[in-house]
Parts: sequence; C-alpha cells; structure tokens
Amino acid sequence: MLRSHTCGELRIENINENITLSGWVQKSRDLGGMTFVDLRDRYGITQLVFNMETNANLCEQARKLGREFVITVKGLVAERSSKNAKMPTGEVEIIVEELSILNKAKTPPFTIEDNTDGGEEIRMKYRYLDLRRNPVRKNLELRHRLSIATRNYLDKQNFLEIETPYLIKSTPEGARDFVVPSRMNPNEFYALPQSPQTFKQLLMVAGYDRYYQLVKCFRDEDLRADRQPEFTQIDCEMSFVTQEDILDTFEGMARHLFKEVKGVDINEFPRMDYADAMKYYGSDKPDIRFEMKFVELNDVAQNKGFKVFDDSELVVAIKAEGCATYTRKELDKLTDFVRKPQIGARGMVYLKCNEDGSFKSSVDKFYSQEDLKAWAEKMNAKAGDLILVLSGDTDKTRKAMNELRLEMGTRLGLREKGVFAPLWVVDFPLLEWDEDSKRYHAMHHPFTSPKKEDIHMLEEKPGEVRANAYDMVINGVEIGGGSVRIHDRDLQKLMFKHLGFTDEEAQAQFGFLMDAFEFGAPPHAGIALGFDRLAAMFGGSDSIRDYIAFPKNNTGRDVMIDSPSPVAKEQLDELFLQMVKKGTK
Amino acid sequence: MLRSHTCGELRIENINENITLSGWVQKSRDLGGMTFVDLRDRYGITQLVFNMETNANLCEQARKLGREFVITVKGLVAERSSKNAKMPTGEVEIIVEELSILNKAKTPPFTIEDNTDGGEEIRMKYRYLDLRRNPVRKNLELRHRLSIATRNYLDKQNFLEIETPYLIKSTPEGARDFVVPSRMNPNEFYALPQSPQTFKQLLMVAGYDRYYQLVKCFRDEDLRADRQPEFTQIDCEMSFVTQEDILDTFEGMARHLFKEVKGVDINEFPRMDYADAMKYYGSDKPDIRFEMKFVELNDVAQNKGFKVFDDSELVVAIKAEGCATYTRKELDKLTDFVRKPQIGARGMVYLKCNEDGSFKSSVDKFYSQEDLKAWAEKMNAKAGDLILVLSGDTDKTRKAMNELRLEMGTRLGLREKGVFAPLWVVDFPLLEWDEDSKRYHAMHHPFTSPKKEDIHMLEEKPGEVRANAYDMVINGVEIGGGSVRIHDRDLQKLMFKHLGFTDEEAQAQFGFLMDAFEFGAPPHAGIALGFDRLAAMFGGSDSIRDYIAFPKNNTGRDVMIDSPSPVAKEQLDELFLQMVKKGTK
Repeated sequence: MLRSHTCGELRIENINENITLSGWVQKSRDLGGMTFVDLRDRYGITQLVFNMETNANLCEQARKLGREFVITVKGLVAERSSKNAKMPTGEVEIIVEELSILNKAKTPPFTIEDNTDGGEEIRMKYRYLDLRRNPVRKNLELRHRLSIATRNYLDKQNFLEIETPYLIKSTPEGARDFVVPSRMNPNEFYALPQSPQTFKQLLMVAGYDRYYQLVKCFRDEDLRADRQPEFTQIDCEMSFVTQEDILDTFEGMARHLFKEVKGVDINEFPRMDYADAMKYYGSDKPDIRFEMKFVELNDVAQNKGFKVFDDSELVVAIKAEGCATYTRKELDKLTDFVRKPQIGARGMVYLKCNEDGSFKSSVDKFYSQEDLKAWAEKMNAKAGDLILVLSGDTDKTRKAMNELRLEMGTRLGLREKGVFAPLWVVDFPLLEWDEDSKRYHAMHHPFTSPKKEDIHMLEEKPGEVRANAYDMVINGVEIGGGSVRIHDRDLQKLMFKHLGFTDEEAQAQFGFLMDAFEFGAPPHAGIALGFDRLAAMFGGSDSIRDYIAFPKNNTGRDVMIDSPSPVAKEQLDELFLQMVKKGTK
Repeated sequence: MLRSHTCGELRIENINENITLSGWVQKSRDLGGMTFVDLRDRYGITQLVFNMETNANLCEQARKLGREFVITVKGLVAERSSKNAKMPTGEVEIIVEELSILNKAKTPPFTIEDNTDGGEEIRMKYRYLDLRRNPVRKNLELRHRLSIATRNYLDKQNFLEIETPYLIKSTPEGARDFVVPSRMNPNEFYALPQSPQTFKQLLMVAGYDRYYQLVKCFRDEDLRADRQPEFTQIDCEMSFVTQEDILDTFEGMARHLFKEVKGVDINEFPRMDYADAMKYYGSDKPDIRFEMKFVELNDVAQNKGFKVFDDSELVVAIKAEGCATYTRKELDKLTDFVRKPQIGARGMVYLKCNEDGSFKSSVDKFYSQEDLKAWAEKMNAKAGDLILVLSGDTDKTRKAMNELRLEMGTRLGLREKGVFAPLWVVDFPLLEWDEDSKRYHAMHHPFTSPKKEDIHMLEEKPGEVRANAYDMVINGVEIGGGSVRIHDRDLQKLMFKHLGFTDEEAQAQFGFLMDAFEFGAPPHAGIALGFDRLAAMFGGSDSIRDYIAFPKNNTGRDVMIDSPSPVAKEQLDELFLQMVKKGTK
C-alpha cells in the first residue's frame, strides 16, 4: 500500500505517529517560511506542512506542486497550532519528511471544488474530474449505500437475486427497443430489455417465489430532461401473494431504506385510489407534502350567468391559506403561469376572502357577495385565504390545476426537500385510449390483471376496467409501480385480443409465456422501482443524472468517450448489414 | 399471503396448528382409503393427507390432482405414523380440510425430479420447468449466496459498487464487440462492454480508490463449449496499491467465500511464475490438487541413439506412482490418448520401475538398465512407479504433457470435486505473438504495465518483457485475472505503438483515457473474476450453463423465447440500416 492511512482518518490520538499518505493536491499556500498543502482523497483532506528552515529542499519541492498532482508523503503527525473545527482531521497536520510525486497534473479545465466554475458540458467531457468533486462523490456513495441496504432487506425476506439475460427479444409493445444484430444468426436481432418482465414471471412459474434484481434496463426514447437510455431498476416479483402483500413488503423496504440511509422514520403509507388522485390532485403522482386539495365548485359557480363557467365541464378550485394579500401583480403572474402553453389554461379566476369578511373576486360582476360566500364555505376558507379557480374540460383542467397547486406549494414553501411524503396510488385503469393508434393500450403493461369484479366490462366499457396495479409515489415523483399479474393462459389471450393482437401475433411474441402458464403458474405479483430516481430522491435532487457515474446527454451521447461512433465496414459486413444514408431511405 | 408457512417449514412442534400451504403437486399416491399428496415449493416438500372416510368429497378432488398442479390447502398439522427421516418435514403431515386449485398443469414434457428424463434441448426450451428441479434451484441459490458474500466482503473493505454504462464504444482491440445501432445518432453505434476496463480506470483517476461491480459483459465470439455471449464478472480496481496488495485483498475474498459459502478453510495461496507453471505443468492454469510435476529428461535421455529423442527440443516426463502394473492394453490406451489430434503428440514412451529393481521401457533397445536407472533417479521414482515420457517441440510437448498429466490425475482419483487448490500465477509475458496478424498482441490487455526492469527489452525482445499481471487459478481453472495498470500517458502511448496502433488510432479509440492520465492519475491495479465460473467451481461443476438462469445455446440462441429473431423493416428504417442477404455481400 502506498499509504498507511487515508486522508480522512488521522486524529489527535495519532500524534507522533509516523505515517504515509497518498492523494491529490487540493491546494497549497506558501507563507514564506512554511508551505501548507491540503492533501485530498476519497475519505477527506489532511494538511501537510513543509518548513523552509528545517528542510529547505523539500519545501522548495512542495512549492512546485500544482493542483491535482498525485503525491505520496511520509511524515509525522503533529498537533496544529490553529485548529480547524470544520474538518474531522482539523486538529492535526503532517510534518512531511519525504515527498514523492506519483503523477503530475495539467491544470484542470474547471475547479475541483464543491461549487465549481465548470459548465455542464465541460464537466461531462471531463467527467472523471467532475467525479472528484465532493457533492458528486457523495451522490455515488449514497447510491452504493442504498443498493447495499436494498439487498440486505430483500435477502432477509428470502428474496433471491437472479440475473436475467440482457440479450433478449424485440417486441413491438411498449417503448422502442435497442436492438443488437446477431452475427451468428444472420439477419436476426436481439433486443436489450426494457425490463426483465417476462423473465421474472417465468421465474415465478419456475417456483422461485421471491425474486429481485438490481438491473439495467434500456429504452430507445427521445430523451426528455432527466431520462436516460439506460437506467437501473430494483426489479421484484413474488408468488402466492395478494396486492396487499406486495404493498406491505415494499412499503417495508422503503421505510427500511429511509431509516438505514437517511435516519428518517416514515409513517405508514396512505393509499389513494387513482380516481381520487385525479379528482383531488389532478395527478396520478400527487405531492402530498401539503394539502391544498382540489374542490369542485360546479354546483355553486355555475348557472349564475358567467358563461365561461357555465360552458365548462369542470369548475375546480384550490385554497391558498393566508394569501388574500396577494397583489394584482402577483395574481397576474399566476394567470400568466397557468396560461403557459405547456399548462394550457385559458385563464384563472380568484377569490380573496378579506379580513373584514367581504369577498373580492375577478368575476364580481357575475356573482353576489352571497354567491362568493357559498364558494368560500365550500372551500372551508377563512378570512385571509385566497381561492384560485380554473375551469374547462375535466382532464385538461385537472392537469392545469395540478401545476398551479404545485406552483403554489413551492411559493408557500410547502415542498421542503428534507420532508418525505410517500403514498400508494392504487386501482389504476387497466387500459388507456391512444388517439394516435385509435386503440386501447395497456396502462401498465399487457401482463397486468384486471380486477375480477370489472372483467365483465372488458367488452362494453374497456376504459372503465380497473387493474390490480399500484404506484409508489414520494413527494410527487413516481418511484415505482407494479401489478398483480395474469397467471392464466385464457385471460392473457383475452387481454392480448383487447390490445389489438391477433392470436398469431400474440403467440409469436409471447407464446413462451402463455405456454408456461399451462404448466402450473402460481398467482404472482411484482413491482419495479426506479433506482436512479430513488437515489436522487434520497439525495434531495430532481436530476437522476447527478446520481449516475457516467450518464449520457440529451441526445444519448457519452461526450467523454465520444460514443456512439461509426464502426468499420467489416464489422457491418460480418453482421450482414449496410447503412442507409440519412435522407435517402 | 396464500400461505401461512412454506412447504419446508413445519416440524413436530407445529402439531395441531391450523396452517395454509401453497405449492406444486410433486406426486400423489392413492391408497384406497387415503390419498397422499407431496406438496412442493422452493423451500421443501410437505405431505398432505386426504381421508376417504372423513371427507370423501375432498378426497375425490385430491385424486384428480395432476403433477405440477398449483394448489392451496388449509388443514391441521399432525404427527406422521411412519416418519421419513430424510425430509426435514418428515415427522409431520397435513390433514387437509380445504383444497383450492390455483392453476392446473398439463403433463410436463419431462419429469421434475433430481434425475430427469428430459434431454438438454427440451429442458432448455422449457427452462422454466427445468428450473423447478432441485439441483438447478440449488445452483442458483448458491450463486445468490456467493454474490451476497462477495458484496459483504468488499463493502467491509471500503469498496464502492459503482455502475458503469452498458452502451459504450466499439474498439477493434480484443474480442469482437456486440454493437447497438443508435437511432438518435444515425449511422453510429454503441458497443456492449467486453468489460468495464476503461471506466474502472477512470474511476481511479476520479479518486474513487476502491471500486467493484458485479456486472454483465459481452463477447461476440464463436461459442466454444461453456462460453456464453453474456457473462458476469466481479470487476474490481484499487488505487495506491502494489501487485501484492491486490493479491492479498482478493485471496482474502476467495478465502472468505470458501469459508462463508462452503464452510471450507483454505490455506494461503501459493504463487507460481508463469515460466514455472509452463515448465512444471505445461499450462498457465495448473491443477495443483496433485503433484506429478514435469521433469525434463534431455540430459539423461538424449545422445543414446534414440533419434526421436535426439531430434526433440524437449524430452519431458511425469511419474505415475504405483502404476508399474499397467498392462500393455492400458499403456496403449494412453498412447492413443496423447495421439488424439487435439493433443497432438506423436507417441509416448513409458518406463516401468519394477518391484524387483529392474526397468522395463518401450525403448529398451536404445537404453541400458543403467541408462533407465538414471531416468528413474532423476524422476525420484521408486519401485512400482510408472514414468511417461513425451518429446518434441517445447511448447507443443508441454501442452500435450499437460493433457496427459490431467488424464492421469483423473484416472488416479487425484482431482476430487470437494478439494480446492487455488494459486496465483504471476509474471505473465506482456505480449504474445500472433501468427495470423504477424504482430504482437497484449496478452492481458493494452492497459497492463510492463515490469519496470523489463521495459528496456520492449524494442529488442518484446516477447520477453514480463507484465505485472496475475491470474487466480483454482483446480486448473482460471477464475480471474488482472494487472497493475499503466497510469502514465507516455508509457501508454508507447504500449499502443508496440501493439501496432498509429498515434491517430490510439487517440481516436483511447484518447479519453490518455487525456485522463494527464490530470493526475494515481497508481492503480485491478482484477476481474468470472462469476459464472466461480459459482460452477463452488458447485463442483464444469459447466457454467448450469449456474445461469436463462443461458444461451452454442449458437447464441435462447431457444425458450426463440431469440434472436427478425425485426420489422420499420425498426431498421428508423436505424438507417438495411439487411444484406447472407451470400450476397
């Protein structure tokens, strides 16, 4: 070992020990007679001292050390005269007796500090330098601790981690696959898994009972902010369970992780129907760190001559407590906010509940004080509160109101990073209508079981059939989701039929799974949690990219290694492929 | 939960408890008045009893249960009258009060027994049924325990598990890459990693110090027996270490795994130079469960008029203790063995050390008893021993003698499954000559550092330069290997030059790594262990396929899901690719 200790380890107890440290030069200060060097490694920073009087030669060498040089020093641990209480090693320094430069360093293109001067692009190109910064290192350490704690929890619950293949089969259902041409099977392709879904179900058919895997998954999607073409899932499946058992087990896991990794005690997760989530929060992933539930005002706000409301399918409001003092300017800003194209409301109506008991609204000419009082009562509003009202088509209006609610939550400081409010959203619809393809798609995936009591509606009202599907939501972010699966061949065939598969297509793509269901498939259910997102949530960040060692940019490129890149013609020849120039196909 | 207990859990202490079990019907026996059903799950088998007298209806139902039906039963735990000491649950049985069939099963295409009647092909097609068999399940459970124990060991040693990307960049060095066309970057390709080599080195440059990952790797090679296109590595890297530190750390890990998972104490690993391994065992992965070292006989066997030996570069022998009694027929068989084309010796000479002190050889007419005695003395042979001699070119003869030695070891029962004899083979050559391309290739990989004292030979005698490279070998199987890496830009450039790269090629393919070396790269070294092979070794098997849940066959196909498979033309269009028919390129 080129060190006896790490740079984060030495304390006052080590005084007078002869030690060896190795690391990077964080900075050096030349005070004439003395030169101080901060030596950094993964574990911390230790101060090195070089004294011109006692060892001029060594001190001269130290003065020439540049930032990020890699060095090894031997020396004596001494008590500092001016201690630094902010550093764990702040009571000691090393009186250096020997110095070796292990590697020099060019000046880095940005500073290796908590707050760097480097922009996103340059930091991605030199990701290995960005990774040296404390905040980034802490993110990856957090991720490591999360994975250890996850595995320990599941291991104790008798789950087996079983690796499923990465070279699998392309299926047109769902998102777009990355494909991998096979050289040994010309003109045929593997696909990279979007999830190990069918394999984990086959493991249940195989009797493995409790499966998990921390596994990379792949989706060739146009990347929105905070999507990566490859991402990591905590993928789980259990047999002989009901939905309730899955919720218990993985709620238990989440609480274990919060306790182990963050030291936070989390209460039992509330459960909310999908229908209620949409009705009261306008979202299937409500942020319940704060209340501010939607209240529907159709009965009190319609038929008073205000055409906008009268023509609306939904009139819905939220109450911002204590905000009756909002100025005209502030209210205009909120109106501008809801009118943004990505939110899409036509306008916003407000109602101030004044301290004197009177009401002031933007639609005073249509409503009497009495009318407005009825609104306020319905909202449970008190003097000083502000009521914000949107109206229009139900779905669009709920969506817009969800955005307004989140915006108000942020403005009022109700969405604190350190507060965690998880819940289960349950009873999702089985199918959702897709306007583009004019057919129903599986909302979760085609293997999700419908609720028994709703199956009779599959023919007549497919959109109303509910699924045994659930999402884990924390602070308005979908952390994971799953479902009770179909384990019966006939029901699975019926499901494929409703999704527009012919029998032949279903058999060609998923025949192996339906065949497996004929040989004794147990009832089973599972869940997959987004591990990158879970890590970001634990770290208090909105960006998963900060929790991935080597992420890709928005066009799917790794700018550090410059990938993807062209390959040699011979490689394509071996694969029986040729390229079509863009624009000529 | 559809069970209160598992099928492996109930004991005499549970008598009179009301329980619920779920599982698969292993078999049922109808004894007229009573029907017995063995119910199986991952955890074991429990006997169910149905009594015609007390519940005729239920008993009738039980009689109709087929093999592999999935059922749930409620009942009472009772003491068995005839106990089965071979089963952990053998003292009890369940008097069934309620029976529900959760899923029926067609008769499986092979028996779900330890010794199945199914051939390889059908078992691969119905892998989910093969996975139900005890031996296969035990393999995967062993693999799970190994992965847990590996992570625990490394975690305690301050290693961080850090995920590296799967969509990386194709490089012509080494084996063939699987490539992945990029839709968003037309006519460009990702490659799947053959190992995370450059990324783990960049993590060292980034200061992460101790990295590991259990990670899938990919190689598009023509599959020999027991190769898989995707396989799993325990991939590790450390900074500020010497070769000795790596050997200590991972010898420690291996011993920890043997202790934790097998309950076996393993002594310190011996270390053997590559040169010695070749000289004494004819292999860089010697099986040292038994001695039988090579002895070179050139000085005593040459120049006595036997032209075959006189014309040989090497005359080499092994001693089979107590085998002087081998018959002519047995010796002929050994001669046939060494003459097989894949072994390639021209013939074999034997020398029997008779009990009466005389010698009998197949070359008696060229050698006196005195001459033969000199051989025996050189071999340290005693009366009753048999000496087997091969001769020819050094490399080929060593290779053939290695096979003969292993064959004799097997015949003499010296290669027991339960015995583990690990060692380190060190000081590998840096480069090896490739006849096809008429140039030197990196024996390990291009990032391996040459021994400092040998660098001066790089120009003149490149084949003699030794590397700081090492392999972990157990029972004649290479479990893993690694090296101290180059961490200096100039040396890395020199290395690429010697491997036949132009400066431009080196920069285009590995510029990011060489650039990284300019910003303060620490000395670092690492290792990668084949996890599939390690699991097979621990399980006492030669086949890694038995330790992979869903392996591929020798043409890289998954016959269960029927992959690879054709993809839709639209998918290729999106990727700006078209297929070339086989034979038309």
